[in-house]
Order: sequence, then C-alpha cells, then structure tokens
Amino acid sequence: MQTHEARLDALRKQMATDGLDGFVVPISDEHMSEYVGAYAQRLEWLTGFGGSAGTAVVLKDEAAIFVDGRYTLQVRDQVDGKLWSYESVPQTSVAAWLGKHAPQGSRIGYDAWLHAKGWADGVATALDARGATLVPVSANPVNAVWQDQPAPSLAPAVPHADAYAGKSATQKRADVAEWLAAKGLDAAVVTALDSVAWLLNIRGADVDHTPVALSFVIAHADGTADLFIAPEKVTPELTAHLGNAVRVQPREAFVPALQALSGRKVAVDPERAVAAIFHALEGAGAKVAGLTDPVVLPKAIKNPVEQAGHRAAQARDGASIARFLRWVSEEAPGGTVTELSAADRLQAFRAEGGFLKDLSFDTISGAGPNGAVVHYRVSEETSRTLERNSVYLVDSGGQYVDGTTDITRTVWIGPDAPPAEVKDRFTRVLKGHIALALAVFPKGTAGSQLDSFARQFLWVAGLDYAHGTGHGVGSFLAVHEGPQRIAKAAGGQAGTGQELFPGMILSNEPGYYKTGAYGIRIENLVLVERREIAGAEGEFYGFETLTFAPIDRTLVDVSLLSGDELAWLNQYHAAVLAVLAPQLSGADLAWLEETCATL
Amino acid sequence: MQTHEARLDALRKQMATDGLDGFVVPISDEHMSEYVGAYAQRLEWLTGFGGSAGTAVVLKDEAAIFVDGRYTLQVRDQVDGKLWSYESVPQTSVAAWLGKHAPQGSRIGYDAWLHAKGWADGVATALDARGATLVPVSANPVNAVWQDQPAPSLAPAVPHADAYAGKSATQKRADVAEWLAAKGLDAAVVTALDSVAWLLNIRGADVDHTPVALSFVIAHADGTADLFIAPEKVTPELTAHLGNAVRVQPREAFVPALQALSGRKVAVDPERAVAAIFHALEGAGAKVAGLTDPVVLPKAIKNPVEQAGHRAAQARDGASIARFLRWVSEEAPGGTVTELSAADRLQAFRAEGGFLKDLSFDTISGAGPNGAVVHYRVSEETSRTLERNSVYLVDSGGQYVDGTTDITRTVWIGPDAPPAEVKDRFTRVLKGHIALALAVFPKGTAGSQLDSFARQFLWVAGLDYAHGTGHGVGSFLAVHEGPQRIAKAAGGQAGTGQELFPGMILSNEPGYYKTGAYGIRIENLVLVERREIAGAEGEFYGFETLTFAPIDRTLVDVSLLSGDELAWLNQYHAAVLAVLAPQLSGADLAWLEETCATL
Repeated sequence: MQTHEARLDALRKQMATDGLDGFVVPISDEHMSEYVGAYAQRLEWLTGFGGSAGTAVVLKDEAAIFVDGRYTLQVRDQVDGKLWSYESVPQTSVAAWLGKHAPQGSRIGYDAWLHAKGWADGVATALDARGATLVPVSANPVNAVWQDQPAPSLAPAVPHADAYAGKSATQKRADVAEWLAAKGLDAAVVTALDSVAWLLNIRGADVDHTPVALSFVIAHADGTADLFIAPEKVTPELTAHLGNAVRVQPREAFVPALQALSGRKVAVDPERAVAAIFHALEGAGAKVAGLTDPVVLPKAIKNPVEQAGHRAAQARDGASIARFLRWVSEEAPGGTVTELSAADRLQAFRAEGGFLKDLSFDTISGAGPNGAVVHYRVSEETSRTLERNSVYLVDSGGQYVDGTTDITRTVWIGPDAPPAEVKDRFTRVLKGHIALALAVFPKGTAGSQLDSFARQFLWVAGLDYAHGTGHGVGSFLAVHEGPQRIAKAAGGQAGTGQELFPGMILSNEPGYYKTGAYGIRIENLVLVERREIAGAEGEFYGFETLTFAPIDRTLVDVSLLSGDELAWLNQYHAAVLAVLAPQLSGADLAWLEETCATL
Repeated sequence: MQTHEARLDALRKQMATDGLDGFVVPISDEHMSEYVGAYAQRLEWLTGFGGSAGTAVVLKDEAAIFVDGRYTLQVRDQVDGKLWSYESVPQTSVAAWLGKHAPQGSRIGYDAWLHAKGWADGVATALDARGATLVPVSANPVNAVWQDQPAPSLAPAVPHADAYAGKSATQKRADVAEWLAAKGLDAAVVTALDSVAWLLNIRGADVDHTPVALSFVIAHADGTADLFIAPEKVTPELTAHLGNAVRVQPREAFVPALQALSGRKVAVDPERAVAAIFHALEGAGAKVAGLTDPVVLPKAIKNPVEQAGHRAAQARDGASIARFLRWVSEEAPGGTVTELSAADRLQAFRAEGGFLKDLSFDTISGAGPNGAVVHYRVSEETSRTLERNSVYLVDSGGQYVDGTTDITRTVWIGPDAPPAEVKDRFTRVLKGHIALALAVFPKGTAGSQLDSFARQFLWVAGLDYAHGTGHGVGSFLAVHEGPQRIAKAAGGQAGTGQELFPGMILSNEPGYYKTGAYGIRIENLVLVERREIAGAEGEFYGFETLTFAPIDRTLVDVSLLSGDELAWLNQYHAAVLAVLAPQLSGADLAWLEETCATL
C-alpha cells in the first residue's frame, strides 16, 4: 500500500501539473452530506484521518489538517506530524490559515462540488487580502492520483411505498410547486440526498447507514421534476414508481439542465447546495434566490403515517434492546464480553426479526473510560472488556422501512452495587431527561428554550455535558436530520432557534462524562405533540416518548427523585412492559418484568 | 392651545418651505435615550400620542403613526384618525410603508440627530427602490413650528462620589484607553447618557427618573476626554471633580471635534450613536470602527462598592415598601384607596427617610383589570379604587445615590379569601420566580437560557406572559440597563444572547395577566454571583436576591409548592424580617413579623 507520504507527494506533483500552488481537501460530497460514500473519503486516503469532520490544505512546502475539539487526540494518533501541522477549529480556520500561509500571487485550488458558496467566498476574500487567488478546479487532483479510488455506489434506488411515506410523491411535488408559485419562482434545485429521497419517495444504499441514492432534483413550478441519477441505479420498478411527471436523466445532464434555467428564477439553498451549482446557474444568467430547501421543514414534520411507522419501529427496536440488555446483565459480570462482541450481539438481536435494513449509525459501545469519549467508535485496537463493577454505555440505532431509531442506555455491570457518585450522576442525568420529557411549552418555542431543563440538575452540582440535548431524526432516513435542535444557542449548532412544530421528532439525550472513568447518557426519541389543556390561553405542545426500553434501576438513587419524577419513571417502565412484553417470552420476559417493576 | 390639526398643517407648510415632500418624527433624542426630555417630545406635540415608543411620517397628502402592540388601543384613543392612519409594527415599518407611499421622485426628510445609521440606511434603500430620496435636514422642521417647545434642561451636572462609584473616573478613562490601545484605535465617541455619566462619575437631572446630564464624550487613547455639555450645567464643583484630563466644551463644539478626528481611527457604537455622528466623522475622513460602546459592559458588571450600595438602597427601599403594604392591607378593604392615592402614599413612604432622589420610573399602580395592562400608567382618568376582594399590582422603584431599585408586589385586598384561580396563578408565578432565584448555571450562559425556568409552571397550565423575565438595572442610573436580559430569544429583545457575568444585576419578574380581570407580577432584583460547589467542573454562577419585601402569603397555595420552594419562601421571609426589622417599629414591625412568619 502506498504510504501517506507518497500520496502527499503524488498530490503535489498533480497540483504542479494543474498549475496550482495549493489545494483544499475536505470530507464532503456533491450533496454536502454529513456522512459521505467511500469514493468521497479523500481526506482519509490522503492523511489517514478517520474522523467524520476535517479539512486538509496542501501547499508546495507545507500542509495542514484542520479538526475540531472532538478529534484533537485522534488526529495526532492517525496523521503523521512530520508531514502535517495540526490546526484546531474554531480557534483557526482554513480561510484564516490561508490568509497567513498562502504565498503571495499563489493560486489555491478547490473543488467547487465539495464546498458551500459561502465557504468559497470567505476563503477568496482572505486570499485576496494576501494577494493570492482561489481557483475552482475542473477536475479534482486527488481523483487523478488516487489509483484505487472506489467508484460511487451503483446500488439500485428503490421506491418507498406510500404506505410508509404517508404522502404521495405527486402530492409532495405539488406542495413544492405551490411554494414556488407563492414566491414567484420557476424552479427549486434540491441537492440534499435525504431531501431528494423524501420528495420523490425513493430510498437507496449509497451512503453507510443512511438509505439515500446519489442524485439531484430540479423541481418545477408545474409540479414536474427532473431527477439526475446514474442510469445503472434506475430499475423498471423505480421508473414505474416515478411516473411520467419525473424525467429521469443521467447525472451528467445536471449541469446542462442548470444552465438551461437561464433567465428563470431558481431557489437554491446556500446551506445545502455546493458552490458549483451557484456557478452554473449564475454563469448561465439564471436569477438565483438563496432560500432554505422547501423540503426540509415538511420532511421534519412527520405526518400521521410516518408517526405510526416510528412507533412500530421503536417498539420492534425496543424488544431487541431489552433482549440485549438482559444478555449484557447476565454475561458481562463474567468478564467475557467486549465492546466489539457486545456491539455485534446487539446488531444480531436487531437483525433477528428480519426487519432491520441497516444500523442507523456505527454503534457507540463504550466500556468504562471509553464511555466518556462522546464520539467514540469501537475498533479492534480500542475494544475494552466490559469489566465487573463498571459502567457501560451503548448508543445505537436501526434503520427500518417504517422508521429510524436512536437510543442510548447506560448500565451498571455488577455484581456489586454501583458507587454513590455514579448513582448521583446517573440520577441527575435521568432527572434532566424526565424534565425534558415532561416539558410543556407554547407554540413558537425553539429548542434552545428547552435545553436548560435537561441540564439544571447537573448545573446545581457544578456539572454539565459538552454536547447538544436533542437532534432531529428522519423517517427511514438520516439519523441526524434538521432543521430543529435542542441545544445551547451559543454552541454554534444550527437549528437551536428553529420553532418546534407538532410532528417533529427529536432525541432527548442528556449525559455526563467523567474523563478516564465513565460516561452516562440516557436517550429516547420524542415526538412533539399538541396538548389539550383546560383553560389554556393559546396553543401548547409537549412530547410523546417514542422509545421503549428499560432504564437501569440499579443506577437510580430514588431519594433524589421528586414524586413527579418517580411517577414518570414508574409509568415509563409500565409502558415499556406493555409495549415490549408481547414480543418477548421466557427468561427475556421474566427479566423485563423484573426490571420494569414499580420502584 | 393649537389643535393637532393646526400643528400638522404648520409642519406641512414648513416642509414645503424646506423643500421636503415628507418628514419622519420619532420619539428620540441626540443620545437615542429610552426616555427623552420634554424638549424632544415632538411626536406627542404633533399627534397627541403619549406612549413611550412610536414614530410618525408626514407626507403632503397623508400621514401615518407607527406603534407596537402595547399601544394599539392608546393610539386610537389619543390620535385623530381623520388626520392619521394607524400602522402597527412589526407588521409594517416606516421603511416598508415609505417604500409604498412615498411619491416617486420625492424628498423625504429626517433629522440625523434622532435616528440610528442602520435605520437611515434601511429607509434610504426602500426609498431608492421607489425612486425617492431620504434627506437629512439641517434644522428639524418641528422645532421651527413648535412655538412653545421647552428648552433642553439646564439642570446642573453633579459629581458622583467615588464612595458610591467604587472606581475613579480617572481609572475608568484609563480602562477605556487600554481598550482603545488593544484595538489600535485613537478615540471612542460615547453618546449614551448613562455611559457618559458612569464613565465620568457624574449625574444629572435632565431626564425624568434617570439621573443623567445631556452631554457627549470623546475618550482618547491617552486617557483624557472631551466632555461636550451646556456651560450652564457646569458648576465649579463639577469642574473640580472632572480635573485637568477632561476638557469641558460647549455642545456646539461636538461636531467640530468629531471633524477634527480626520484621519484617526474612532470607535462609535452603531446601536447607540445617531447617524449624524457617523456623517460628521465619515465626512471629515475619520476611520470609523462600529463597536459596542466600551463602557456598556463594565457599567453592567457592578463592582463591590456598587454592589454594597445596591444592598443598602434595597434595604432602605424595602422598609418603605413594607410600610406601604401594611398601609394598603389596612386601608384598602375600606374602599377609600385609589390607584393614584396609593402611588402618592408609596412615594411619600419612600421620601420620608430623606434619601430618595427620584422615583426610578412612573409607578405602575394597577387595581383589578388595570393590573392586567402590562405598561399601565395611572392617570386621573383611569385611576380605579382598590376594591374589596380584588387583586392590586404595584410596580415601582426609587433612585438613591447608592442604587436604583425596581420591585413589584401583588396583593390581595380582603376581607374574604382570594378565589382558587387567583391563588393558583399567583403560586405558579411564584414558583417560576423561585426557580430563577435558585438557578445555578455555568459560565457562558446567556439570559435566554434561563428564561424558561420562570415560565415552566405557567406553561404546564397552558399559560404564559407576554414580556421578558429580567432586565439589567443601573447603579443610580437607568432602571432599564443593557446589555444583559432574561427573555425569549425569539422575542426580538436585545441582550438575550449576552453572557451573564458575576456582578450583573437583573430583575426577576415573571407575571400572569388576565385581561379585564387582574394582573400578577412578582419582581425582585438579583445579583449574579460566583458559586463555590464542591467537585464543580468549571465555573458556576447563581443569583443573590437583593430585594427584601414580603410576598403576600394570602395568595400562596402552599399545596402547590415543593419542599425546596417552601423552604425558599420561608428563608426569604426570614431574610426580609432580618433586613427590615431594624428599620421598623410598633405596628409596622408587628405586621412585618406576622407577614414573614414561617409557612
């Protein structure tokens, strides 16, 4: 295998051939996806960095890799410090760094199919002040030197039945057409893969754990659409599903189609569409309106069919979790279970019913100190044994055709009782989880207004957690879905100001992490629902908890719970038993009955 | 007296003389003050509107007055609908309205000494799209036709002793100089009246209820300053206090001084400085840096002397409140007390000690349904009797040389017990007040993250209140002081994203209002303080309650309180007794002991 040093050398030679003094390598694809296919993992190929977010900048004589605080240690472990300097964001940025390091008069290349226009504008400004230029490349130089670069997936795209979608693609296209008409626009360019999938009621298998198909859509004001997708992915079944109003074209036809919008008014989402799309439209003389993708909000507001699908998927998933938790409780104290074997066993339980399409993300299986690494991914090198008398955290989810799940449970591996500190921390996290589950709030409330409810019991003890409290979740789509989010507004995470609407699904996942010792997180999914309150002045909402799996009673310090909190916990466990019992039998059922008994 | 119709005619004639097709009349002064002096009440003179926020636009053939939701009814009551159309903000705006109503090619005048630059830029853009022009006037045409316009106050400005300020003006100027040096700037223009007063440790009497002196400052990087103030206001005592490093100049010298900054780098606050100041600087070739007034944050973070002053002022004020509440409890059930007489009596109690400099705002004395009008101001026409078996709300404050107070109490006028609904609502407001008082939060937390704590118990009952929960308060300065605020971020109120720092003072004032029936509000001032928590991971803060006065136990439904909440209430009342008892005697003391007894 080629060394990373040889790869960097090869890229520099290609840059010279292409007349570039520098080149920027992000983790991104043509759809600005959170997770990208193997063909787009250019940063990992070039540097060895295996994290999910980062950017490299290669100049002739120096090279830098930019990662955030999650990856400070990992980047030093995986990326050669003799070849690369390590840079931390947001303390610095590619733009700021290039503004200091780019040689005067230099030409710095970037692939306009992998970056937002706003990013390119910012870097261009910084380079301009330096007397250098940002240049979009016609071909990505990494592709030219990556000899065994995988091809983009050609997995077939498949119809997503109306019985699960709850609304026909025809109706969804009509809704977009109505939105376009109201704004006086001719077309919308839909680039986010989950937006395309939701709009046309199709699913795919081109990105790990997210059932989307690599494709673009141009939706028109007459209710028709153009779908740009590799012909190999289009089956007769898909063609029949799409119907006559959707013109299926190869991906190569996308840029000419954008150029054909010359003179038209076209909506494009600056947060979701890459710079190259703006270049194509603006270069052809289209009038570009920078607007949020019109699919984003209706996709987030689940219709009754999608809601029912989530309930069914969660019930199914919960039974797998319960069987897994019983298995852990019986096996782990014997010292024979590892993080990897546990993750495998959990996947096997999920798969047994025959309904699992995929995991919804790589399972976070964290024993002891590994549980304190918030974005931990288990590997052969890091896998620890679940030790006797320790904390085990498992965050996992499944993709089912009727819904996407995401659940975290934290359990105590016996046989002894847990230390008071662990129970105290677990109970504070649980109280925060319950406070959010019980929250009632008026129409117009955003996620940032609810976040503190989940943190308050940690705060009074001088503790906190360094991640958001809740993210949106798709319907057999992305496990992280916008636009809503429950988090601190100051954290810089998008969506904390988004008004919550009935039908939105969010995670409720406060936690606590003691570095080098243990991690605690309790995560259920919740659905925003209308609340009928006698005498209410205005419209009020609350949460229906969708996730059903026992919360480890061993870790609960009941003396710290209020009467309302204890009632919630007992009612929740009663519901868990009612939902899961019909799916379990024998020892599994007996264990569930015991673990869900009234406290 | 000239009719409002005659005044409007006169203004239109003056506009014609000045070559204007329109003119904009705001409630504002040269310092963008929240409350303005009588000489600047041009909107009230022109239209009769007596509210605290609004704008008029006069064209040749039509005229409109713009007010927000607080004044929807009042504007129709006070302003002649035959002369004026009523416009609601934020549904429309002056810019949007002019963009539709200004005749093509017209010249719309504005007084650049009364508007922010951002406002002028927005209106100019809207007019430009209409083919019209926004024109700064050289003299305000209202002044030309307002025959008995009061002159600006010539009240003397006086030194504010270091014993109260806690930091010398020399040191404060040195701090600003250090800030300028760090930013590579030459000077800062300080325009907000309370900023000028705090920076130079001076106070005045030019604005009702806010002890400020009409003046501007240019602070220089060498630690000196220019003070622009009417010479009549400068006493020998003031001159001695200011010292040699402050050059005292007449207000007329301000613009020439701005122009003399040609070529210099000058900080000006776009939120606080009027457009004319930007015009003068930019016209003279100064380099303007739009930065927040460097006095704002240090003024908000009270030093230990200011904190001690607040505690002393609050204790003094609380004794007056206690005597007043006893008086209300004894007199009101007899049916002889009115909103006006109560407000007068309260002012008399405050004044008796001889320390009261002024009220800190017009007392809100709201009986029954008037208590539900959030921004109610009592007048001869509206004053109601405090009826038997009704709710009375009183929101008031005093200006003392050592601190500014602001307190709201809501009491039940007997003799019967209050209805269950009123007790329920009062207790929910109290629970929210206590939740905020007990909040603990990490460094970096903004007011918007705490606001929901105060609303949660109303929300679960389908109720809310349509105002913020907390505003900053000055030290013998403005009773509404930025930059911090506890409110919904989406409410559009400035400061909800401002990080809270130890030393900041805020109000804690949740409420509930039943239109046509009663209003409830419980307001104490609180001080952000560091909390030492064993095992804390990071820096954590909480609130010290500064205000001491009994909360009406008649209105508390103890069965709705948690153990922690009841403990807070009992501890609070014990503290009220401890702080106020030394100042009271006889029947007042006996009443206080009874009303503060453990529940």
